[in-house]
Amino acid sequence: MSDIQLNHLAIVVEDLDAALRFWRDSLGLTGGSVQSLPAEAVDIAFLELGAARIELIKPASSDSGVAKYLAKRGPGLHHLCLEVPDLEAKLKALRDAGYELINDEPRERAGRRYAFVHPKSAGGVLLELYERIDKPR
Amino acid sequence: MSDIQLNHLAIVVEDLDAALRFWRDSLGLTGGSVQSLPAEAVDIAFLELGAARIELIKPASSDSGVAKYLAKRGPGLHHLCLEVPDLEAKLKALRDAGYELINDEPRERAGRRYAFVHPKSAGGVLLELYERIDKPR
Repeated sequence: MSDIQLNHLAIVVEDLDAALRFWRDSLGLTGGSVQSLPAEAVDIAFLELGAARIELIKPASSDSGVAKYLAKRGPGLHHLCLEVPDLEAKLKALRDAGYELINDEPRERAGRRYAFVHPKSAGGVLLELYERIDKPR
Repeated sequence: MSDIQLNHLAIVVEDLDAALRFWRDSLGLTGGSVQSLPAEAVDIAFLELGAARIELIKPASSDSGVAKYLAKRGPGLHHLCLEVPDLEAKLKALRDAGYELINDEPRERAGRRYAFVHPKSAGGVLLELYERIDKPR
C-alpha cells in the first residue's frame, strides 16, 4: 500500500441543485453545502465519500476555465485530487521522468500546497496533487 | 457520513505500460498486475488507492464499447464505482426519482452484484453501483 490517498474527485455540473438531487437526495451521499469561490468563478459543493469527497463544481461565470471546459466537454468527471505526504518529491519524480506539470511550483492556500499535472502527461486525466501543510508531525 | 464508499475509479488508457509508468513507477501507487478480460475485450490493471482502487482499462479489440469510447472521447476518467450496502434499494430510489439505469436488473458476478446508472441521469458521469454479496453478515 502506498501512502497516497484520494482526497477528492471533481465533477463539473451545469446545475448544482439538480446534481444535489441526484447524488445526495436520491443516492444518499451526505454533505452538499454550497460555497461560492469568487476568485475562481465557481460554486462548489462537497459530498462525503468515506475518507474522500466528491466535489461538484458549477461555473459562476461564462468565461471561467471551468465554464470553457463545460462548453467543450459537457458535464462529467473533471479531475482527480490525490493527497501525498511529500509533494515536492512527487513533483520532482514526475519532472525527472519527463512529465509535464501545469504549475512547476506548488501553489499554497489555507494550510495546503498543491500542483496540477497536465492531462497529456497523465493519460487524459487532470490530476491535482495535494499536501497538507498544517498536518500534525 | 453515509454508508457509501468509493470502490474504484476507472481510467481509459491507450497504453497500459505507459499508464503504469506514470501512475505506479513515477507517482508511486502500488499494484498494477495486468489482467485480460476476454469477455469484455479489455485488459485492466488495478492500482491501490487507500481502501479504493484506480482501474486502468485498455481496449483489447477495436470494436468493444471501451474502444469506441476511447475513439470518441480520448483517454481519461471513464467511470466511478460506488459500493453500497443495499443495491436494490438504491436502484429503486433512483428509478422512483425518474433517473435512468443502463441495466434495471442488477448483474451478478463473482460475489458481487452491480448496475450502471446512465450518464445522462448522473450529470455526465457513468456511475456503477456495486454491492458485495459474499460479505460477512
